[in-house]
Amino acid sequence: MTVAETCLLAKEHRASIAMASEADMNAMLAASAAALRAHAGEIIAENQKDILSCTRGAQFVDRLMLDEKRIDGIAAGLEKLIALACPVGEILEERTLYNGLRLQRVRVPLGVLGIIYEARPNVTADAIGLAIKSGNAVVLRGSKDAICSNRAVMRVMKEAIAAAGFDPEFIQLIEDTSREGATAFMRMNGVVDVLIPRGGAALIRNAVENATVPIIETGTGNCHIYFENSADLSMALPILINAKTQRTSVCNACESLLIDEAFAKKHLPAIVKALREKGVEIVACEKCRAILPDLAAASEEDFYAEFLALKISVKIVEGVEEAIAHVNKYGTHHSDCIVTQDAAAAEKFLAEVDSAAVYVNASTRFTDGFEFGLGAEMGISTQKLHARGPMGLRELTSYKYCVRGEGQVRG
Amino acid sequence: MTVAETCLLAKEHRASIAMASEADMNAMLAASAAALRAHAGEIIAENQKDILSCTRGAQFVDRLMLDEKRIDGIAAGLEKLIALACPVGEILEERTLYNGLRLQRVRVPLGVLGIIYEARPNVTADAIGLAIKSGNAVVLRGSKDAICSNRAVMRVMKEAIAAAGFDPEFIQLIEDTSREGATAFMRMNGVVDVLIPRGGAALIRNAVENATVPIIETGTGNCHIYFENSADLSMALPILINAKTQRTSVCNACESLLIDEAFAKKHLPAIVKALREKGVEIVACEKCRAILPDLAAASEEDFYAEFLALKISVKIVEGVEEAIAHVNKYGTHHSDCIVTQDAAAAEKFLAEVDSAAVYVNASTRFTDGFEFGLGAEMGISTQKLHARGPMGLRELTSYKYCVRGEGQVRG
Repeated sequence: MTVAETCLLAKEHRASIAMASEADMNAMLAASAAALRAHAGEIIAENQKDILSCTRGAQFVDRLMLDEKRIDGIAAGLEKLIALACPVGEILEERTLYNGLRLQRVRVPLGVLGIIYEARPNVTADAIGLAIKSGNAVVLRGSKDAICSNRAVMRVMKEAIAAAGFDPEFIQLIEDTSREGATAFMRMNGVVDVLIPRGGAALIRNAVENATVPIIETGTGNCHIYFENSADLSMALPILINAKTQRTSVCNACESLLIDEAFAKKHLPAIVKALREKGVEIVACEKCRAILPDLAAASEEDFYAEFLALKISVKIVEGVEEAIAHVNKYGTHHSDCIVTQDAAAAEKFLAEVDSAAVYVNASTRFTDGFEFGLGAEMGISTQKLHARGPMGLRELTSYKYCVRGEGQVRG
Repeated sequence: MTVAETCLLAKEHRASIAMASEADMNAMLAASAAALRAHAGEIIAENQKDILSCTRGAQFVDRLMLDEKRIDGIAAGLEKLIALACPVGEILEERTLYNGLRLQRVRVPLGVLGIIYEARPNVTADAIGLAIKSGNAVVLRGSKDAICSNRAVMRVMKEAIAAAGFDPEFIQLIEDTSREGATAFMRMNGVVDVLIPRGGAALIRNAVENATVPIIETGTGNCHIYFENSADLSMALPILINAKTQRTSVCNACESLLIDEAFAKKHLPAIVKALREKGVEIVACEKCRAILPDLAAASEEDFYAEFLALKISVKIVEGVEEAIAHVNKYGTHHSDCIVTQDAAAAEKFLAEVDSAAVYVNASTRFTDGFEFGLGAEMGISTQKLHARGPMGLRELTSYKYCVRGEGQVRG
């Protein structure tokens, strides 16, 4: 099947999920979860084929690998969606116009989601689950490195949905994993309603450059922690260490530390010591190096960088104005935090930093659909159109106007 | 100034409007409106230059033309915005998480709006007004046919804003009206937050094809009226005539009529007579031509067409299922209407037609920001991402999460 045929098939079967009741959606999720557990052996066998033909490094293989425990986790994720309310059908606004027309703004599914992602077969099941509970058809395009795993997960879930008495064809996997296939997918205007790339910066950039379908940019995070002059060091250090080191490969990890000059003069040695004890490599501005000459120099690029590693850039600033300007210039509008005891500085930072999530006195690691109480997550949007920050079920919907009249015409 | 420099200048001055109080926004609007009236003579003189160098037809010139009355209308439009509430700062959600973090989802401006449009100098002032009241910087790229008019409107408004004591540089006009300039504008990622093309199908298509900045597709409307079998002809005909003929050049005008077979057998001659009396050219399916052989035949393309003229395609369908399938296949997801006395048919049509506005027993001509009570309109979105249907001030905003803690870190 061509990419276009695959996408059209999902669109043709869109009503099978868009018109499904919440009970039916939940039955599909429960059947899928049970089937993933029951067929874990088959899925693991297919996953082994991917792993055997994979020539990439250990970290890559770790992300690709499925075992009983991981499959159980994926199934549990689907079961958690059962408890979440389906957002479709919510009446967002309702009013009668001057001419008697009754206007309703009603939440509806987006239609057909397109998901393009890397060699993470858990995303296959996650994305299908989120599509089911938000009433959307979904077309998945995973990496060729995970094609056997993705086929197996998809087959098990579709068979389970069919066995439960539902049409599973609103779910489709693109078999063509070529670059040309990806580009064709990104240009399915009129068929795919939104494309969500989930993966690293290169994947996102490719989608931004090539997609004509509306996309939601996700995930790139050059997140900042700013120690304002009034910060309490005993609060500041744990926040920094948590945001930088608790998990380094994630988009909400801290990549850059800004410090007010007077605070740095007092505390830079303690801050550097705490980071080094956790094995963090530091690159710093000239003002920092004037205080601690053994620090490595940061380049201009370092301040733009998302290291995704035990590495941090450190810069001394002259106050909240410069900190805000720095974050807005060098950041990726993901998650940024001020540590301060000064309410005015906190409110200024909250108001003027142009990011999806802005924090006062807390780790940036909380920017997450589950932590924010959305109950699920399709990714973290770093654009301002449609959805910003963690995207749950609600962010996978649109709305339409339903207008009921008795023959009204426009004068 | 290059396109990039112009866009960057707007972005640099973004805070001048994003941080403005509602009173300041209103003062800018009032000053702009007064200045447009006071300087109408200058603006008309510049508009005459555009008209003299224009080689296009009368309809084109009519849209381009500014006179005292039109300028007064534009000024009145700005004054109407004063009465509308600025949506920025609205707290959309507020809750305390399990760990004590206080989460707020707050409405914020989109940032920098990009508007690309045709030779309609009224759009220049309208877009600036909407940007002001929604807290957005704005970069305008009008047609070269209207460049003198646009420069004049822009200069008058910016001078008025400056004279009232505010920084007007968050408003910028792109002077380079070349095709290359337009393409550069469409690729200002990281500077322009959203691009809204306002104009005909070719302009929209060009933006969809070439933009890497997120866009909102607007305005293409192949709108349907469907006469279901239970329709009351005395209600159906006025709705059809209004939707088709009240104004033909607009996106919410009807372009296609669907009729249930039994209804057509009874009423097609009366329907055709009513349309012809209004001078409407009819192209029809074979089943219609079997009833009235003198009807011209419709091609497949006719059913996809947005005529924007006194012309309509007519097709006989076998019931609400076929009508819905036809609308979803041939339509542009703008505005579609069922005329019926059958509540079940009405609800089915409302639920299953995948359009921004779906009507029961009313003219499609009501799909409009003013008619829907939004008080203003930047265009009508036909995409599902971000905004659907008429876009007012609220649709020109995004949100961000503000998170306040006392040292919380992730476990």
